[in-house]
Amino acid sequence: MLEPLKKEVLEANQQLPKHNLVTFTWGNVSAIDRETNLVVIKPSGVQYDELQIEDLVVVDLDGNIVEGTLRPSSDTPTHLALYRAFPQIGGIVHTHSPGATSWAQAGRPIPALGTTHADYFYGEIPCTRMLTEEEIERGYELETGNVIIETFEQEGLDPIAMPGILLSGHAPFSWGGNAAEAVYNAVVLEEVAKMALNTFILNQQVKPIDQFLLDKHYLRKHGVNAYYGQK
Amino acid sequence: MLEPLKKEVLEANQQLPKHNLVTFTWGNVSAIDRETNLVVIKPSGVQYDELQIEDLVVVDLDGNIVEGTLRPSSDTPTHLALYRAFPQIGGIVHTHSPGATSWAQAGRPIPALGTTHADYFYGEIPCTRMLTEEEIERGYELETGNVIIETFEQEGLDPIAMPGILLSGHAPFSWGGNAAEAVYNAVVLEEVAKMALNTFILNQQVKPIDQFLLDKHYLRKHGVNAYYGQK
Amino acid sequence: MLEPLKKEVLEANQQLPKHNLVTFTWGNVSAIDRETNLVVIKPSGVQYDELQIEDLVVVDLDGNIVEGTLRPSSDTPTHLALYRAFPQIGGIVHTHSPGATSWAQAGRPIPALGTTHADYFYGEIPCTRMLTEEEIERGYELETGNVIIETFEQEGLDPIAMPGILLSGHAPFSWGGNAAEAVYNAVVLEEVAKMALNTFILNQQVKPIDQFLLDKHYLRKHGVNAYYGQK
Amino acid sequence: MLEPLKKEVLEANQQLPKHNLVTFTWGNVSAIDRETNLVVIKPSGVQYDELQIEDLVVVDLDGNIVEGTLRPSSDTPTHLALYRAFPQIGGIVHTHSPGATSWAQAGRPIPALGTTHADYFYGEIPCTRMLTEEEIERGYELETGNVIIETFEQEGLDPIAMPGILLSGHAPFSWGGNAAEAVYNAVVLEEVAKMALNTFILNQQVKPIDQFLLDKHYLRKHGVNAYYGQK
Repeated sequence: MLEPLKKEVLEANQQLPKHNLVTFTWGNVSAIDRETNLVVIKPSGVQYDELQIEDLVVVDLDGNIVEGTLRPSSDTPTHLALYRAFPQIGGIVHTHSPGATSWAQAGRPIPALGTTHADYFYGEIPCTRMLTEEEIERGYELETGNVIIETFEQEGLDPIAMPGILLSGHAPFSWGGNAAEAVYNAVVLEEVAKMALNTFILNQQVKPIDQFLLDKHYLRKHGVNAYYGQK
Repeated sequence: MLEPLKKEVLEANQQLPKHNLVTFTWGNVSAIDRETNLVVIKPSGVQYDELQIEDLVVVDLDGNIVEGTLRPSSDTPTHLALYRAFPQIGGIVHTHSPGATSWAQAGRPIPALGTTHADYFYGEIPCTRMLTEEEIERGYELETGNVIIETFEQEGLDPIAMPGILLSGHAPFSWGGNAAEAVYNAVVLEEVAKMALNTFILNQQVKPIDQFLLDKHYLRKHGVNAYYGQK
Repeated sequence: MLEPLKKEVLEANQQLPKHNLVTFTWGNVSAIDRETNLVVIKPSGVQYDELQIEDLVVVDLDGNIVEGTLRPSSDTPTHLALYRAFPQIGGIVHTHSPGATSWAQAGRPIPALGTTHADYFYGEIPCTRMLTEEEIERGYELETGNVIIETFEQEGLDPIAMPGILLSGHAPFSWGGNAAEAVYNAVVLEEVAKMALNTFILNQQVKPIDQFLLDKHYLRKHGVNAYYGQK
Repeated sequence: MLEPLKKEVLEANQQLPKHNLVTFTWGNVSAIDRETNLVVIKPSGVQYDELQIEDLVVVDLDGNIVEGTLRPSSDTPTHLALYRAFPQIGGIVHTHSPGATSWAQAGRPIPALGTTHADYFYGEIPCTRMLTEEEIERGYELETGNVIIETFEQEGLDPIAMPGILLSGHAPFSWGGNAAEAVYNAVVLEEVAKMALNTFILNQQVKPIDQFLLDKHYLRKHGVNAYYGQK
């Protein structure tokens, strides 16, 4: 069942330690098959170097386990909420990568301070509000998804042009057209977060780059007139 | 004698350089067999990649050498004081890992700034007072253990829910149910320390996360209603 | 065609990940043959570990593709502008290496704070102004080259004695007599940028080193009286 | 000639990249045979992984080349000045390791902020004054040695208890009883420098540790009553 997608999800999970995004098992990748609306996700607490394709769990968009003997990631309800709300996306990554997590703990969005940022994230990377006690009691992981969606709605953001977010007091989520793109964006987010920290140390009054430079860099990599790469 | 425990202690010591917690021989792991009250500990000054199972030293809770030809870690009296005071713990780690040591040198406890922290440390990670000259003359390593115990008593802390501490002007100790758990917690402490430093640079007025978020994360990994992982 | 030069450019590109200067494909190296005025450059978006000698693209100084089936780096017009303006240089590197990029994002030149800097960069490493909207619309990559040249003209800099620059809100370029020297200078620039950041944290009023110390270090490695190394 | 000493110097030089103390060829180790007063030192500008035992240069205390076909390190006059002034030492290391170099560039001595420092450096690690123009013209490398010696004399320091120093605007030197000890101390100095930087970020009013704690840690590793390790 969904063997090609499982292979993608397995490889994407294995990329997390290779890119130094995770300590122990602190991260997970999923991907969705939009035809069947089935999601393949990492099992909870399993190490990346021991992860086998048969360990992956298949769930439907309501969270029912369709295949798999292991318990899915405890963050599964967050992933599912995002797949339901953002039909454009095909893969999701959650990590506690240290640079992005430091910004999330500080409760600060990451402004677009340079073209590295602009190449992949079209503007300031948002940071959610803190969850309330009531939300946490009601369903922590589901409400984590809901506060991401709320932030995107309030700020009028497009999940393709802004493929990630910081959860206040927690850590980042990122996503993309598929699992590999989601991991790619998680790496960019971490790199951008670390450079933005150093930039602020050097210049506490630094301003975001001009909108026209942001446009130029984002659009030379994305959209109909893109001219970066070989496609 | 105690071969399975020795094997655990050997492997736990070998994990220290793999997790980048130690320079040279600056760290040691021990574990206790609660039936016989014997402690297996690393010998002093031996490199991790040269450490053999027969190099480990077995001591009783009074510090008498029961087996082994090498001198035990100079920190042995600290380990023994903790085993005597905290019957819940089975393994102890001491390192000079750079992030946690920076907080210890600054004399600051590490507040719970995010869920990475909350997943393993149930609240602010304490920092002891400095030892007095009299204490150091009386018995430095024993008094190091005593000031840890004093801090836990004064702050009403549970050594299982708070599996580590910073020694002012020195470095961290951490522990757990066994040697491997103690190393795990030493890695988390280091990771949390580094992220907390960056968080403070980004937001010097940052507050700890809400108690209910701390509860949620700690309790989804620990206790009877835990739902993280496969057990 | 130009096989020895292609080999140099291939190896120089492969050095970028080895020196931790690049994430993914965020960097490129070129070199010029001054007899034919042909430039060999990395193709756009190709990974370093997959790069083959036949993937390299040969262009003339007007940007016409003379050999190669892949699209050249999107930064090619910047490289060509520099080769046209600086006849002394033979190789160029562009990366988003995190230390230098942090200074570029902060919009700050890197003062010569020590002899590591003075050994290779003869004075403050300049930082360009931001490009205007009109310049970006007119031709972003060409104007990126032009603003580098403008900065060198305004500050009266010699591209051999100052083999690199920061682009405001973007990242560094560096160069040298050939591709390998250009990479060498990119590594130095990154190392110097990281140390200068830490130096400023320790001493916000730090001044550049004295001119005579700068002279001494630069000239013991470069010029007719150099006495470093074996030549 | 001096084959065992050459072997020690070769291995000590090879340790520099293993401990991440050097970029390119930015560091060198020497050792002295006190019976013949001959010094074995790295040749200038040779890479560590290409260094062969026959590349090492033997010089006398006046700097005359006694054996070897390559040019000795350009820092040789500094090494020789230290061997002449400090008869207790047997090996010397110079690097531009980034943490220690950042303190040197900031012109700040490193206070003893914790026991990691106290275990090997008995007090504040000094930082020299800047050299004058006259000194640099007269003989840069020799005067670099002289300003180290001047600092030790003015502060009444013992080169065994304080096995290193920072050169203002330049980088560290360290030393020890032999080449391996000198490298060991260079690693400690770098580690201590990086932690002290982070400590200052966390607590800008941090004070050095108490003298009695400094004494305790230094003396449990050094001197007649030492009890660390197996000797």
